[in-house]
Amino acid sequence: MLRVIVIGGNEEVGRNMVVFEYGTDKNNSDIVVVDIGMQFPEEDMPGIDYIVPNASYLKGKEKRIRGVIFTHGHLDHIGAAPIVLKQLGYPPVISRELTLALVKKKVEDGDPGAANRLKTISVKDINKKLSLGVFKTKFFEVEHSIMDSMGVALETPVGTVIHLGDWTISHDPADGNKITYENLSKLKAPRILLLESLGAIKTGTSSEKIVQGNLETLIKSAKGRIILATFASQVKRIKLLIEFCEKIGRKVALDGYSMRTNVEIAKELGYIKVNKDTLIPINDIHKYKDNEILILCTGAQGEHNAALNKIVTDHHRFIKIQKNDTIVFSSSVIPGNERSIQRLKDNLYRKCDNVIHSDIMDIHMGGHSNASDIQEVIKMVKPQYFLPVYANHFFLKEAVKRAVEVGFPKGKTAVLDNGHILEFSKKGAKLRKEKADTSYVFVDGLGVGDIGHMVLRDRQALAEDGMYTITVVLKAKSKRVVNTQVTSRGFIFVKDNFDIVNETKQKIIKIVSDTTSEDMKLDPKEIEVAIRERIGEYLFQKTQRRPMILPVVIEV
Amino acid sequence: MLRVIVIGGNEEVGRNMVVFEYGTDKNNSDIVVVDIGMQFPEEDMPGIDYIVPNASYLKGKEKRIRGVIFTHGHLDHIGAAPIVLKQLGYPPVISRELTLALVKKKVEDGDPGAANRLKTISVKDINKKLSLGVFKTKFFEVEHSIMDSMGVALETPVGTVIHLGDWTISHDPADGNKITYENLSKLKAPRILLLESLGAIKTGTSSEKIVQGNLETLIKSAKGRIILATFASQVKRIKLLIEFCEKIGRKVALDGYSMRTNVEIAKELGYIKVNKDTLIPINDIHKYKDNEILILCTGAQGEHNAALNKIVTDHHRFIKIQKNDTIVFSSSVIPGNERSIQRLKDNLYRKCDNVIHSDIMDIHMGGHSNASDIQEVIKMVKPQYFLPVYANHFFLKEAVKRAVEVGFPKGKTAVLDNGHILEFSKKGAKLRKEKADTSYVFVDGLGVGDIGHMVLRDRQALAEDGMYTITVVLKAKSKRVVNTQVTSRGFIFVKDNFDIVNETKQKIIKIVSDTTSEDMKLDPKEIEVAIRERIGEYLFQKTQRRPMILPVVIEV
Repeated sequence: MLRVIVIGGNEEVGRNMVVFEYGTDKNNSDIVVVDIGMQFPEEDMPGIDYIVPNASYLKGKEKRIRGVIFTHGHLDHIGAAPIVLKQLGYPPVISRELTLALVKKKVEDGDPGAANRLKTISVKDINKKLSLGVFKTKFFEVEHSIMDSMGVALETPVGTVIHLGDWTISHDPADGNKITYENLSKLKAPRILLLESLGAIKTGTSSEKIVQGNLETLIKSAKGRIILATFASQVKRIKLLIEFCEKIGRKVALDGYSMRTNVEIAKELGYIKVNKDTLIPINDIHKYKDNEILILCTGAQGEHNAALNKIVTDHHRFIKIQKNDTIVFSSSVIPGNERSIQRLKDNLYRKCDNVIHSDIMDIHMGGHSNASDIQEVIKMVKPQYFLPVYANHFFLKEAVKRAVEVGFPKGKTAVLDNGHILEFSKKGAKLRKEKADTSYVFVDGLGVGDIGHMVLRDRQALAEDGMYTITVVLKAKSKRVVNTQVTSRGFIFVKDNFDIVNETKQKIIKIVSDTTSEDMKLDPKEIEVAIRERIGEYLFQKTQRRPMILPVVIEV
Repeated sequence: MLRVIVIGGNEEVGRNMVVFEYGTDKNNSDIVVVDIGMQFPEEDMPGIDYIVPNASYLKGKEKRIRGVIFTHGHLDHIGAAPIVLKQLGYPPVISRELTLALVKKKVEDGDPGAANRLKTISVKDINKKLSLGVFKTKFFEVEHSIMDSMGVALETPVGTVIHLGDWTISHDPADGNKITYENLSKLKAPRILLLESLGAIKTGTSSEKIVQGNLETLIKSAKGRIILATFASQVKRIKLLIEFCEKIGRKVALDGYSMRTNVEIAKELGYIKVNKDTLIPINDIHKYKDNEILILCTGAQGEHNAALNKIVTDHHRFIKIQKNDTIVFSSSVIPGNERSIQRLKDNLYRKCDNVIHSDIMDIHMGGHSNASDIQEVIKMVKPQYFLPVYANHFFLKEAVKRAVEVGFPKGKTAVLDNGHILEFSKKGAKLRKEKADTSYVFVDGLGVGDIGHMVLRDRQALAEDGMYTITVVLKAKSKRVVNTQVTSRGFIFVKDNFDIVNETKQKIIKIVSDTTSEDMKLDPKEIEVAIRERIGEYLFQKTQRRPMILPVVIEV
């Protein structure tokens, strides 16, 4: 019996993680994990750094994990590795060179010294087979925007699971290396295809060759410096850009931690081949003429702390925008970042006459497929089951529609939620009733999973209308109020609102006397409840706002 | 001397307002205002309801305002009318019928009884001229997504200002009523063209006729109910949809306050002509068969409190989603709403098999021009000066590029910021050094302008890491700490973190003793500063979070 459990990535973009478990005995099974990605927080998760997959399902089963396979080195596939691999007791990690190096770096950054604990199996020869317990494992090349992307096929007695990771079909690759997926149809049936389906409604298409061509034309014709912002994850494009600059004699300076890290690692492994004087330190750019410089940096999403934002707000140590700079956004807009990008562009347009972005020119494409690619790959692989994964629910539903449009039987498709457990046996597929726990695990500062929905709700409430703290000091015997202090943040300016503060203090005296029983007994909790209610009501009537009210009642 | 002052709308979308002032004498001038719109808050403005234009420039000049002209009835043009008209002492309001009715409704909703104070001049005959002080005023038809949209031309001794409001060139209008702007070239030179330029980089185009056709096909072929969400501001489309439903025998139920209001007003004025049994109350839908119903509602942006979200989350009193419903989003995505829309779609796809949105089919277009329309209108009007307005800075800069591309001299263009004062005299145009105050005026509950950047920063900080309140009660004489209370919200769960709370209390005793001088004098402020610093440091080291720390020190 084979179980497919989507731990994360099927109701969002990010925290991708799938578990494959084979075994009939409750006390015994073989487990393979594919990807352990991180997710960026949503708008209603203030203060959260990021989200990691919830590995509860694997608790107590750590010893049965035969391997964790990383399909490629992007953060939504490897970003939670430092935390989750540790939770799992460091099972063997399997991937290709670049991915392994990025995972190691990530683990070491997150927990210095931990990289030594990693047991790694490098997929040097993509055609080499590997046995992971009962799983006969094969790997295959996948087209994506970073080198060493691969898919995985896991053969079991009841079927072969095929997982492409992130993928596209490059009809015209910039590096000329065209990949097809036809061979997968030769794998043992029934074939169960897990397909990343982010592009399920995307119709338009471009090609990396066109993108690269446009970028090269821009670079050649720029009269001054070029500041090119792109995703640090676009390692293939970055490689071609650096190599092109070397050819035409521009120096390349890198900026942004992830940009420098990724290029450094790719260079060490020989994926980026340049003379040692092509890449120059960012603090050396003043030594060259403007038209000899290209700065390759992060921050195309308007991230506050990234290189590009520092440059445009004059907070960068070595770069100040000049009117004759050419600024290029070789990037798309990640949903949720629209406004910060707009703000960034507004600022750039104020300081520079040449801002080029993908709204204006074809200078970016993601490494993801579109709707017709999904149909094409289904025709190539000829699976018996189709499970779209790694996207929001509605994209997965649309991916099923794409499959049905080319004749795939709807009954052999399934849109899994996070936590769903789909079981395959000789008899067929069956969705189990119970679900794995996939509730959010938030990372905030040093805390992993200690922030719950209650704390988040408080943060949202505090953001909405601020807070109003009332400290009441009472004489224990007389129940007389001897002191009331009011402090407020994010609600009103106390200095401008003495009348509200004074009236609050008056009301407190009344509330305390109302809440004190005849025998002079007094329950601080009861007073606090009354304060919350009556002061809350008063403030709302005065301001139509509902700050969080925090009464502190102290007897002395 | 003519002054053009952009009060709002040139660095954002929303709070549109432009002031035209003619007069050489400091103590005497004629003023005309065009539009008084509202803006929705940005992400970094938690708790803010909306933003209104800052009318400081008009302070003390209220008596010189000859009129406030509203180009059309959308919220970014009339939404701040209740607040700003009141501030200005209710100057005469000039517009066409539907706009006036919407302004009146808005003013009355915001301040019951205030509509009576409005002095209105209705532009019943678009060709009628009007003198507003020195300004010889002409109006003209403009193509936009709401009826009664108009532009305005203000002739003065030094030039004619032409302002189109929001506009497009409809190459194929759904209602067959084609408008051109060629006549404007006959207005007295120099012509100063203010042009809304939101579409400065938009290339693709559709037509309302295609959109309307697609919607009609959807409606005709739907087997069950149709729930169609669109902007309540799209009054032209709404009219055509209701009239089409009448033709094919579907009943229309309206939901959402703005949807009902807009249709009600448009119907009263005769802009929507239907039999009285075509529009049915929402609580009557159970009386009809599924395929006899179309529900026209708000909430296509995923707004939490709007009709569509209530429907999908089962909070609607009369509507529960059915599998065979057809749900149509005839709308675009307003930047900033991507994620809430995605969430809404995910939920809809779970409950319904037929969700149609404009990513999938051509069922929406805005009422705004695209890049080539901007070039076309410039050729039609043949202005001497070109001032793009009503969009983010970078769109305005791009609009200038579009003008220059068709031969317009760059020296005769200006991209104004909010608050810029551009002066026209017989000698030409000149940007003044001083700026009008256009800082944000936030509306939050009953407060207008009382929330400043300090309060907003506090809200952001509270949202990020929550708060930690420490109340310390001291004996006045002995300086002994008699009581310390710790309360926290949005930071950690106090119940799970007794060690942190206890250690805080220990530290407080130490801080107080360190801060008390030898002669036992004690400055509560000084203790508070020390608490903030040292407890802040301690908490950061423990958690890597920085909650807002609120010490309250009380002597008894």
